[in-house]
Amino acid sequence: MTWIEDAGFRDDQPFGPQTLPYGVIDGQVAVRVGDQALPLRPIAASFGGLADVVSATSLDPLLAAGRSVWTELRARLVELVNGPAAPNGATLVPLAGAMLPFTVADYVDFYSSKHHAENAGRIFRPNDEPLLPNWTHLPVGYHGRAGTVVVSGTPVVRPNGQRRGSTGPVFGPSTKLDIEAEIGFVCGGPVTARVSTSAAADHVFGVVLVNDWSARDIQGWESQPLGPFLGKSFATSVSAWITPLEALAAARVRPPAHPVLDYLAEDQPWGLDLLLEIDWNGSIVSRPRFAEMYYSFAQQLAHMTVNGATVRPGDLFASGTVSGPERDQLGCFLEMSWGGRDKIALADGQQRTFLEDDDTVRITATAPGPNGSVVGVAEVVGTVHPALP
Amino acid sequence: MTWIEDAGFRDDQPFGPQTLPYGVIDGQVAVRVGDQALPLRPIAASFGGLADVVSATSLDPLLAAGRSVWTELRARLVELVNGPAAPNGATLVPLAGAMLPFTVADYVDFYSSKHHAENAGRIFRPNDEPLLPNWTHLPVGYHGRAGTVVVSGTPVVRPNGQRRGSTGPVFGPSTKLDIEAEIGFVCGGPVTARVSTSAAADHVFGVVLVNDWSARDIQGWESQPLGPFLGKSFATSVSAWITPLEALAAARVRPPAHPVLDYLAEDQPWGLDLLLEIDWNGSIVSRPRFAEMYYSFAQQLAHMTVNGATVRPGDLFASGTVSGPERDQLGCFLEMSWGGRDKIALADGQQRTFLEDDDTVRITATAPGPNGSVVGVAEVVGTVHPALP
Repeated sequence: MTWIEDAGFRDDQPFGPQTLPYGVIDGQVAVRVGDQALPLRPIAASFGGLADVVSATSLDPLLAAGRSVWTELRARLVELVNGPAAPNGATLVPLAGAMLPFTVADYVDFYSSKHHAENAGRIFRPNDEPLLPNWTHLPVGYHGRAGTVVVSGTPVVRPNGQRRGSTGPVFGPSTKLDIEAEIGFVCGGPVTARVSTSAAADHVFGVVLVNDWSARDIQGWESQPLGPFLGKSFATSVSAWITPLEALAAARVRPPAHPVLDYLAEDQPWGLDLLLEIDWNGSIVSRPRFAEMYYSFAQQLAHMTVNGATVRPGDLFASGTVSGPERDQLGCFLEMSWGGRDKIALADGQQRTFLEDDDTVRITATAPGPNGSVVGVAEVVGTVHPALP
Repeated sequence: MTWIEDAGFRDDQPFGPQTLPYGVIDGQVAVRVGDQALPLRPIAASFGGLADVVSATSLDPLLAAGRSVWTELRARLVELVNGPAAPNGATLVPLAGAMLPFTVADYVDFYSSKHHAENAGRIFRPNDEPLLPNWTHLPVGYHGRAGTVVVSGTPVVRPNGQRRGSTGPVFGPSTKLDIEAEIGFVCGGPVTARVSTSAAADHVFGVVLVNDWSARDIQGWESQPLGPFLGKSFATSVSAWITPLEALAAARVRPPAHPVLDYLAEDQPWGLDLLLEIDWNGSIVSRPRFAEMYYSFAQQLAHMTVNGATVRPGDLFASGTVSGPERDQLGCFLEMSWGGRDKIALADGQQRTFLEDDDTVRITATAPGPNGSVVGVAEVVGTVHPALP
């Protein structure tokens, strides 16, 4: 029996030794073990030359340290949690004090689910081809606001803004507040331009869930010709815990085959067999499969840097809304309600199209781990607060 | 005679005591005086309680300190440079060591010249109304890449990327590399959401020139439906010296009158009478007037934060390309060449549409200062280097 089992950890949990996601609890770097966290500063002496990195107040130094340090630290942590006795000074603490664990540098949001892009096209441009001509040739994306990325649990205040009215724009609280369920990739390692698909994993530290909250009415009025802005920039929620990319080795799958230009070709597939689950006020309303995404994170990172733009520690890029072909695999309420036309029934009898005040959305994800285990990506949760007057 | 006059400063220069822009020389906070710089760390004792801020390695602590510190420091600096004798330890140094003086947090680019937006509309969508319906109601904008904002003088490598070809996309060096001449606003003070137009100046430390380099062929293929991405993200150049907003008090003008929603109304006008000058390989090809911009920086900042998004120290937002109604007042080569149709003649006989390798573009700006003086915004210069293979 290991010491974490003694402390209550059950080995069918998604955040066991097979996962060990990193976060920050009350200003200390920590790893999550089941539903508790192990702060590392008190046991920094167990980490030899990595003591500085684990004693930091955020994950920023770890992100900057790069792939070889990530591998070394993870190996040491696996050894520690699988030991028979806790290291001197080790204490498991509740998850409640988790903070945004890193400084977000640039935030990019892609649009790489073909089902989502086709549905959005059909809803917004019903008389045109659902996909624009560029979509099958490059991972369409745009920059978002890094300064309003918030940690899971942060309330989301309904945004005010301009929307289209019958006789001109009107200003007020968004009436079409939506979610977008996405997978996010947290970057680290040296500042680098032109990252090839085969080098992408050296620049991706790990994976989070992202809820790209979207005010569809604000977005619909403002977005031409330069893209989404205030319809998205009020808040983007991310998991408090970053699942290391290494924990997803058993979840790698080949993404859907399609021709690409040379710089987007992958010699090793980086599709990931993650199953997302979207819970709206206690009802599971969707289970999107990430394995069906048209572009992998390696292709997204290669694209993002092929023009000479650099990637740097703390950069965060998100996959775009994860939607599958079925009604119960859609990643946003715009699609589930088909632009607000159809009601979405929750388990307690409530009917919804978009979010109402006090609604809570929780997104979780799991993937196959080694030896039949399950690897988790930590939940991203948010509750809608009323607009400010 | 003041000590800076003794040291060679002439009082008709745009970077005299009326301007005193801030920058960083070789890791030291400095102010520019004429064509030299005064590092402040050696004379930190002259600044009393502000010694820490002026002894920093970047402007980040000064930006965070807020408006009252900015006012106090500027008053002290004006006093110092107007004194008869140099403070103990003061040395004027060449401008050559100037670095990017602050950490760019979020970077936003607006699109607030009506002439530019109309011209771009006519060039890209010749059969439609030049302005989209939202344009006259809100300052259209989008987020850009903060990590590739570079200081004036940094070479700009021609980006590679996808562009539209006759039988599908082709990949290679951009063939339509362009500039966009803009004014940028550097933010500071406390992290704040919903900044009203009347409070905007408390969150804007000062002004820079911005060259928003744009690969029109990459941009044209990628930009729908989510806006510009790799066509812009390879590099954005900014002045090495930030002209404090206070130096532009005499340049304030009323912007063009037009109706706006309440949150965009200004009780005090924040138009700025800046005259830009665009020099291409030694030829002045344009002199755009900033006073004609449709939205002021106060309106842009009020808009950017009205949805609850915060502004924080280090945020940079740019005006959008500054273009006037006349042929010699346009802010980019897309407009000057009308989409590449017309040649632009340079003084030495060269003909251009877009940028060729080894071309150099220098953008400068001046504004009326107090008592007939001229206030400068420091140059932004860049030379195009060939694409990487």
